Amino acid sequence: MQAEFHLHSESATPEGAPGTHRPGGRTARNREAVLDAALATLAEVGYADTCVQDIATRAGVAPSTIYRRWGNRDGIILDLALTLVAEPVAALPDTGDLETDLAALAHAIVEVMQSPRIGLVQSILFAAAVQTPTARQTLNTIITRRVEDTKGIAERAVARGELPADTDPARVINTLAAPIYHRWFITGETPDTDDLTRFAKVATLAARHGLLS
Amino acid sequence: MQAEFHLHSESATPEGAPGTHRPGGRTARNREAVLDAALATLAEVGYADTCVQDIATRAGVAPSTIYRRWGNRDGIILDLALTLVAEPVAALPDTGDLETDLAALAHAIVEVMQSPRIGLVQSILFAAAVQTPTARQTLNTIITRRVEDTKGIAERAVARGELPADTDPARVINTLAAPIYHRWFITGETPDTDDLTRFAKVATLAARHGLLS
Repeated sequence: MQAEFHLHSESATPEGAPGTHRPGGRTARNREAVLDAALATLAEVGYADTCVQDIATRAGVAPSTIYRRWGNRDGIILDLALTLVAEPVAALPDTGDLETDLAALAHAIVEVMQSPRIGLVQSILFAAAVQTPTARQTLNTIITRRVEDTKGIAERAVARGELPADTDPARVINTLAAPIYHRWFITGETPDTDDLTRFAKVATLAARHGLLS
Repeated sequence: MQAEFHLHSESATPEGAPGTHRPGGRTARNREAVLDAALATLAEVGYADTCVQDIATRAGVAPSTIYRRWGNRDGIILDLALTLVAEPVAALPDTGDLETDLAALAHAIVEVMQSPRIGLVQSILFAAAVQTPTARQTLNTIITRRVEDTKGIAERAVARGELPADTDPARVINTLAAPIYHRWFITGETPDTDDLTRFAKVATLAARHGLLS
């Protein structure tokens, strides 16, 4: 099971082979080991109890290596979260129809939340953000990144003339995402296909009526 | 500051006066003391670290009294949450217009989340629910209760013929509430009046178009 928490399944690259001592190679391996250890530690003990010492021990590096590179615990978690968010989840849907694109995006958002890596980190940050400003900041950074990465769907609908010119693309994405997160985090349910279709219809209707400008 | 965590500001009622020993009176005072202590402990240490022993010490009652009445820690928190939810927040808006009623409800939801009592308990349960099934269950119970208490707004709009007959009133309320919770818990922002007006417009539009049936 531990394997699914690894950042890179291809970690046994030639660069990582015994006897290789290029500094760049070791730095990259250390970074990977630390992020893997941070993910595993978060999964095991949660945000509040994750500390640099435990991550260092698990990664097999000196704590000083971590402090030098990441500053502190939250520096590692931000790097981990941004690394995971940077992974391509799925190609951005582009069917030529806003509602269809948004329904596909809704499914992709649920897939991300079900993933044992970014979904896990997101949930942990989400719970921690209620009481911890640094966790809130990290969560905001990754959510903002996700919205930036996906708002092209709404921008293209504006360019096609499907939506009013003054539509705020980020607002369209948030209108789709809000009920998904509401289901996931508040009522603890996984939205089904009917729900996701409905959320896409509501966001499309609101955008077409100029409510999201 | 401690005072704002008290369940009842009128706790110094004649019933609670020195020398009064009616059993019903003591039971009621004990319950109030335990719920006050639970609220203060939750506020201080969070859900995970709240335990019966600390609540008992703070309330000045024996732990056995707590176990006998509430079973365990989560029994107390559920009682606390339901007691707070049972308090009337504000009269249900009834202006004869769905959008106006929903905008007023949106403001009331934000007020509840800003309250130092139910807002606090809700936030704590919310964070805990990500990892703890019992906290999830308690959160669901209070959210469901809130939806039940407010769905009359949508039911009246159906009765007036403002919404299709097959509208799901709970779905109308959830469509309004989802973006409020999204703002509050995901991006950590307090929605402003413009946001709340927009959320009410989107929910009204979606309901009128039969998307929430």
